[in-house]
Amino acid sequence: MIRGPPAAPVGPHRRTHTDRRANTARTPPDNPAATAALLVADELESVETRLGEVLSSREPRMTEIADHLISAGGKRVRPMVTLLGFRACGGSVAIDAVDVAVALELIHSASLLHDDIIDENDTRRGRASARSKYGIAHTLVAGDFLFSRAFQICGRFDAEQINWAAEACIALTEGEIMQSRFRNNPEVTLDDYLEIVYRKTASLFEQGARISAALARPQDPSWVDAIANCARHVGLTFQIVDDVLDMTADESDLGKPVGLDIREGNPSLPIVLAIAEDRELADLFAAESLSDGEVGAVLARIRRSGVIEDCQRLAIEHARAAQQALAPLPDTAYRDSLCALIEQLITRVA
Amino acid sequence: MIRGPPAAPVGPHRRTHTDRRANTARTPPDNPAATAALLVADELESVETRLGEVLSSREPRMTEIADHLISAGGKRVRPMVTLLGFRACGGSVAIDAVDVAVALELIHSASLLHDDIIDENDTRRGRASARSKYGIAHTLVAGDFLFSRAFQICGRFDAEQINWAAEACIALTEGEIMQSRFRNNPEVTLDDYLEIVYRKTASLFEQGARISAALARPQDPSWVDAIANCARHVGLTFQIVDDVLDMTADESDLGKPVGLDIREGNPSLPIVLAIAEDRELADLFAAESLSDGEVGAVLARIRRSGVIEDCQRLAIEHARAAQQALAPLPDTAYRDSLCALIEQLITRVA
Repeated sequence: MIRGPPAAPVGPHRRTHTDRRANTARTPPDNPAATAALLVADELESVETRLGEVLSSREPRMTEIADHLISAGGKRVRPMVTLLGFRACGGSVAIDAVDVAVALELIHSASLLHDDIIDENDTRRGRASARSKYGIAHTLVAGDFLFSRAFQICGRFDAEQINWAAEACIALTEGEIMQSRFRNNPEVTLDDYLEIVYRKTASLFEQGARISAALARPQDPSWVDAIANCARHVGLTFQIVDDVLDMTADESDLGKPVGLDIREGNPSLPIVLAIAEDRELADLFAAESLSDGEVGAVLARIRRSGVIEDCQRLAIEHARAAQQALAPLPDTAYRDSLCALIEQLITRVA
Repeated sequence: MIRGPPAAPVGPHRRTHTDRRANTARTPPDNPAATAALLVADELESVETRLGEVLSSREPRMTEIADHLISAGGKRVRPMVTLLGFRACGGSVAIDAVDVAVALELIHSASLLHDDIIDENDTRRGRASARSKYGIAHTLVAGDFLFSRAFQICGRFDAEQINWAAEACIALTEGEIMQSRFRNNPEVTLDDYLEIVYRKTASLFEQGARISAALARPQDPSWVDAIANCARHVGLTFQIVDDVLDMTADESDLGKPVGLDIREGNPSLPIVLAIAEDRELADLFAAESLSDGEVGAVLARIRRSGVIEDCQRLAIEHARAAQQALAPLPDTAYRDSLCALIEQLITRVA
């Protein structure tokens, strides 16, 4: 899908990019994510630098907790979508998109720290969770700190754009409460599931992309909605893939125990689809706690049921919708790279 | 100190105010807080209305938790200082100051919800704390929700003003971590104490007042700093008074158990001053947990030590500094009322 170099660079910052890309010392990309990363390599580097800067606090312990989570990596899918979307809309002053990407990653990280408290997680990204390493009190405060930093960064955007970011934050909290309403609750429907995922995951993708697209001041204003729509579907795809991996991956690949959704009574997509067809499974889902043996049995039963394939199909549908949303945008390497990145998301569960 | 009616009203909103104040059916004020409240009665009413509106969520449980805390009252000192400061600077479009006051109260409320988790409080404002009523997970999320709403409201302010609000939020989190460094730590000094209180309490007073004063577009720009400086001292006075009341008040007046700071190892002002002079008290403060008898003995020993009087003196000093900070402002009923309100703060411990 990559059809050659991006359009002519604009301004000094873009020239540097072209120089970087032309640097033959760089390893040629071997997969779409690497290609995408290379297209916005400087911006991604700026995101990491800025993240490092804004994690600094007058309290070293605060920086340590934030760094414990953020330096553990994560896939940085949100920054990548934001940065590519910004470029695909013709954005040229990359510092704007970098700030959006940083704010997004901070809000996402704050929500992970708080989620670890809510879900009592002991591990995260293959290491001890902040909660288990630093305790509830400091983990909670570090989440608030990251959120405040995001708020600070967003301050220089327009009122409308800040409202979009705030809406995503509000949706996150409402998603958390909605999810808890359906914890161990076999009444949960596919629509409930999609609403929870929209609030908890897709909304932040959507609003972040919307802000960065708006900051790009695109030639055609409808591109802002196109990018936001794309990012919303990316968020849905991303979460569905995550749900499937919780059922099918190896613990070492996952960085956390397999079958967590079953253990915690989370209405993940495979569970929602499986319990609709299987009364016994529904009863097991309603149980407040399951033995390891029961968890294993539930996992096996769900894997055999055929719903994993249904989940894969739904992930592919949302990935296609995300790609199709980009159709109105001009044909650039950025748009193609975004398409390829979306394609790669679904190869994780293909 | 009240020297007659405020200066001539400007604009339709202000006319309504004058009408309200001229309404002879109103009970005449019997204390400075009532006078202050009457001067900004419509604005305070708008604050309550706006608070009610922004607490609404797609998740009724969220609204319930937020309402549980916010409808329990609280003294609304922050809104009052913000609104009077705005008027004292000649501000006329009250909706601006109302929004600042609402955002401030939301940030303060969010921090109380999170504090109840951090300090494991069972009571707050004379009733069950949200944490003990709704559990850690939902209380945490409701705090994030209130914080997001504040973020949303602040979105329409200038970048610089949003930065001030974000700085206050960051200071809050850093104050929390700093306080925990000195929990049960007899090395704590008066300077440490003042820095903790600045971060945890005074900074939000200061930055809220700074924003509302700036929104008033005062004739003399230096009034913004004057009001901010005043509000910072109000915050310090407020916390010192709170610390003293924790040692001297009745449980029924306080709405929470007496001696909580001793029990929790919080470096409150009486404790900080007392342990500097009394090695045995310092050792008791260093103990991770004390029996009820020991708490009673420590309280009695601190009350006998004379530090309560030192605390009262310090509270009065900060109250005076707050009042003196207002000297550059024009002589209006708003300024006088703010002075009287500050005076009343210290009568609680006089």
